Amino acid sequence: MIFRPDEPLALACGEALPQLEIAYQTYGALNAEKSNAVLICHGITGDQHAAGRHPITEKPGWWDRVVGEGKVLDPSRYFVICANVLGGCMGSTGPGSLKPGGDKPYGLSFPAITIGDMVEAQRRLIDHLGIERLLCVIGGSMGGMQALRWAARYSDRLSGVVPIATAARHSAQNIAFHEVGRQAIMADPRWRGGDYAERGETPQKGLAVARMAAHITYLSEPALHRKFGRNLQDRERVSYGFEADFQIESYLRHQGFTFVDRFDANSYLYLTRAMDYFDLAADYGGNLAKAFAASASRFCLISFTSDWLFPTADSRQILRALNGSAADASFVEIESDKGHDAFLLDEPEMFGVLDGFLKSLSGRSDGRRRGGRGGGEGEGGSSFRENRVDLDVIAGMIAPEARVLDIGCGDGELLSRLIASGRRGVGIELSQDGVNRCVARGLSVVQGDADTDLADYPDGAFDDVVLSQTLQAVGRPRAVLEQMLRIGSRAIVSFPNFGHWRCRLYLAFWGRMPMTLLLPHFWFETPNAHLCTVMDFERLCWEMGLRMERFVGLDGGGKPRRFLGRFGFLANLFSEQAVFLLTRSSEGGFGGLAPQEKGGSGETPE
Amino acid sequence: MIFRPDEPLALACGEALPQLEIAYQTYGALNAEKSNAVLICHGITGDQHAAGRHPITEKPGWWDRVVGEGKVLDPSRYFVICANVLGGCMGSTGPGSLKPGGDKPYGLSFPAITIGDMVEAQRRLIDHLGIERLLCVIGGSMGGMQALRWAARYSDRLSGVVPIATAARHSAQNIAFHEVGRQAIMADPRWRGGDYAERGETPQKGLAVARMAAHITYLSEPALHRKFGRNLQDRERVSYGFEADFQIESYLRHQGFTFVDRFDANSYLYLTRAMDYFDLAADYGGNLAKAFAASASRFCLISFTSDWLFPTADSRQILRALNGSAADASFVEIESDKGHDAFLLDEPEMFGVLDGFLKSLSGRSDGRRRGGRGGGEGEGGSSFRENRVDLDVIAGMIAPEARVLDIGCGDGELLSRLIASGRRGVGIELSQDGVNRCVARGLSVVQGDADTDLADYPDGAFDDVVLSQTLQAVGRPRAVLEQMLRIGSRAIVSFPNFGHWRCRLYLAFWGRMPMTLLLPHFWFETPNAHLCTVMDFERLCWEMGLRMERFVGLDGGGKPRRFLGRFGFLANLFSEQAVFLLTRSSEGGFGGLAPQEKGGSGETPE
Repeated sequence: MIFRPDEPLALACGEALPQLEIAYQTYGALNAEKSNAVLICHGITGDQHAAGRHPITEKPGWWDRVVGEGKVLDPSRYFVICANVLGGCMGSTGPGSLKPGGDKPYGLSFPAITIGDMVEAQRRLIDHLGIERLLCVIGGSMGGMQALRWAARYSDRLSGVVPIATAARHSAQNIAFHEVGRQAIMADPRWRGGDYAERGETPQKGLAVARMAAHITYLSEPALHRKFGRNLQDRERVSYGFEADFQIESYLRHQGFTFVDRFDANSYLYLTRAMDYFDLAADYGGNLAKAFAASASRFCLISFTSDWLFPTADSRQILRALNGSAADASFVEIESDKGHDAFLLDEPEMFGVLDGFLKSLSGRSDGRRRGGRGGGEGEGGSSFRENRVDLDVIAGMIAPEARVLDIGCGDGELLSRLIASGRRGVGIELSQDGVNRCVARGLSVVQGDADTDLADYPDGAFDDVVLSQTLQAVGRPRAVLEQMLRIGSRAIVSFPNFGHWRCRLYLAFWGRMPMTLLLPHFWFETPNAHLCTVMDFERLCWEMGLRMERFVGLDGGGKPRRFLGRFGFLANLFSEQAVFLLTRSSEGGFGGLAPQEKGGSGETPE
Repeated sequence: MIFRPDEPLALACGEALPQLEIAYQTYGALNAEKSNAVLICHGITGDQHAAGRHPITEKPGWWDRVVGEGKVLDPSRYFVICANVLGGCMGSTGPGSLKPGGDKPYGLSFPAITIGDMVEAQRRLIDHLGIERLLCVIGGSMGGMQALRWAARYSDRLSGVVPIATAARHSAQNIAFHEVGRQAIMADPRWRGGDYAERGETPQKGLAVARMAAHITYLSEPALHRKFGRNLQDRERVSYGFEADFQIESYLRHQGFTFVDRFDANSYLYLTRAMDYFDLAADYGGNLAKAFAASASRFCLISFTSDWLFPTADSRQILRALNGSAADASFVEIESDKGHDAFLLDEPEMFGVLDGFLKSLSGRSDGRRRGGRGGGEGEGGSSFRENRVDLDVIAGMIAPEARVLDIGCGDGELLSRLIASGRRGVGIELSQDGVNRCVARGLSVVQGDADTDLADYPDGAFDDVVLSQTLQAVGRPRAVLEQMLRIGSRAIVSFPNFGHWRCRLYLAFWGRMPMTLLLPHFWFETPNAHLCTVMDFERLCWEMGLRMERFVGLDGGGKPRRFLGRFGFLANLFSEQAVFLLTRSSEGGFGGLAPQEKGGSGETPE
């Protein structure tokens, strides 16, 4: 379908397009509440034909794995919209379009376009379709740049944003690869300064070289090695010449030569340039966080481990900005050896994350309901039967309406309970499985490591930062504690107490490393690299100038204990688990007092 | 200088070159013993002008940082030889040379050449210079391929080999990048099927594009970001066009356009092809270890962390083959963000490794002498004053003439003592500093991690595998023990005993994590993630079916203790350090006997 807005489109470069055409496809139907519209944005060589058979290549559309019956974006559920970008060559206005008032294509007289201009064209289409608010904007690579631009400019018109394998600014290396491609096209004498259309010849060789160079960047070395290695193409031995001896050469030539049949060289120049120019922060005084300052949308960032064109570091840069603007953000780094193109390929983990996120946006998430009970019983509370009574104690320490970061949040049990009782919370979790389950429950969770990724949060971003039963497994406990009290006002830490009498007896009389219900691992396979006692922990807090607001010791049965007297060693001797609530002391120091004097050790949690 | 051999050169492709010219440079003089000759092999765009001002570019030669007075390859000490490769365009015979019997250059009628052909040409030059044995062959990238080929074919004529940032076979991704470059050249109409010379026009645009694409692969994203970022070139704002708006574009264009002045397009085709064809294992039945089977040369492999063209994995593949053929190999991975080109740049760590390795080859290594004493006194024995009495005990357990692997070898103290007393030993060490010090002492040490890199060694490669005071700091102690007894006949393990009475008392009565001379770290900063007691360790060995051949317990003063009675707990209680000698039991199991019955606990070490 073609949409032709009445008004000219003013462009970022200062010029305007008097006549505009946007070619688009839709899948499914808009529901009565107009609440199920999902805009998907294609990458540089994609187009509006996301699903089904492509009219030119006769192959499945670029996201046929995602859009279709029984797939993540099922047309029976969502109204999916995909438009050819401004500057493209599949029906939307671009350098190959006829210049108004003449019979020649624009060629290089087409004005420069930006990612923002593409989004403006899409926004008009969305208006035209009568959609006030999109459920979600999703895009990979250049499409992810569009999604980010949508989020920055039209946050009030989006519930969710999913930027996949993308960046908030094009890197120097990526500009360099684009420049190589452009130089290859422009070096082709058939390009003729962009005026090739009238001669009936196109700069095929140059465009093929550009495509070949770019295509390498979409893959990964491991994937190429697995797929092609050094295998020869239809021969027993090398030709000692310049034929395509190797399968990889043959494959690459094929990629180049088929591309020129479906893509316009000038469009390639303009779209690469639009990506080069993309630097979202530049429009906000160089501060990316400001781009998302007013955002009420929920974000779900996705990157792939082997993507070296838009590596995970690019997604983490966006994440830092979202954290800096207190936006609601999840982030998943998917283990894949397929490189940048992984977002177009069969990646079940990505499908799972997308599905969970979309369901939670449309209020169909199981997890919200499951997390809504708050009790310890039933399916959702299974972890509580495994000595996680500390979560009860922790939940009781958190103020109503507090904003919470749960480090090592697992499957989100504590978070969903907190959210159900009115607190706001996000999590960090290392395991892919845990993150996926959290996202599917409608929770905002970032895949990350306490040792390295707390630096991504700005000072004072949270009221409470929780580290439950994880302190002993992090690499640098002191640094993690420092970070917790940098990004939060209060830190809540629970850990198994190595000073418990059972541990002491075990070592002293058996002469072996203690193993208990809370420390169930053999010494040679324990994840607990930094075991400590209650007294050790107090000592560290004192050194760090932290104030212990409250302490709760849990005995072997998981019950909070009341310790008599003022002797800290009793808490150390009889607590199998310890829960500390810490703040940064203005006076600096613990005061040297025994823990139970400070916060009522052994009190019953709310 | 030009060397013109009399005989034609037979090539791998089956053809022969009737007339051959090799252009070369030398620095320094051959000594009377003819023992100081070092051949350095250049990369694809280098040439014979390694040092001093280049006659064409007027810039310093490609390895001016290494070759020259006061530098690593000081001409007052070494006789340095560098030849333009066969197929090159700086004087050696190549596709630009006149075809014999005519007045036209070869062009594409030049026969295909291989890395092996380049080495044959160099070998003739070395013969011509009257050198029977080279002290060392050194090369980076394509030059590293030549060095590997030298080592495989002429091991008897080399003392040492230094392959830097290279691979034993060109990867699919690298072939792909080369193919893009070749297609760019061949797409240029001025290339004219290779016969451009007579027209006085060269395929400049195509060659420039090829160079630009290749140049990106020589750098790294962090280096590009640091150097250029998204900085604009001589302008305040983007041009909204296709000029070189960004510094990176301007830089890349400059790289492309200056390259065409000094390099021949056909040479570029032939040299890229030679690299593509390089697969050293293919000449040895697909088994790379066989390429080095007869090698008596010492190897020093060097890679750089940010090199993605020849990543560290490529060097590790070579290392595995060298280990598989029991060759003498060191390996260093240098931390650098400069990418592949790091080997051409200012990398002091690389200079240090090269210098140490060359000195040890020429018998000027301090370390060999220092390590030759064997005692615990003096400068070389300083670590022994720091509770390393276990090294005395370990040295005493190793048979004369045993082949030893020392995991976590530090600065090589144990190794150099073993070697001085006739044992053969190599080491693995994680720290750059430790590896450098070992290499400078003339020891063969691989930079690596016990948890991941023991898999690089073949079964039964060693008599004794030593892990001293490292067990408790590795990530997976059980897997490391398994590996030790896979690659060696006997494993010798020393560790601090957490079951010592001091540790027990510390925890039991103080309620804090023990800190002793051997365990000097606070709980929150200890590297010891897997502490264990003597009894824990025995139990693990029993489970793994290992046989304890000998046990020595060292008391707090570092003295071997004699434990009376048959009760293992005494050894556990009074040994501050433990040293175990283990084998794989054929009966499977420890026999359940107390340690002192098995191997004479407490005996005095030899």
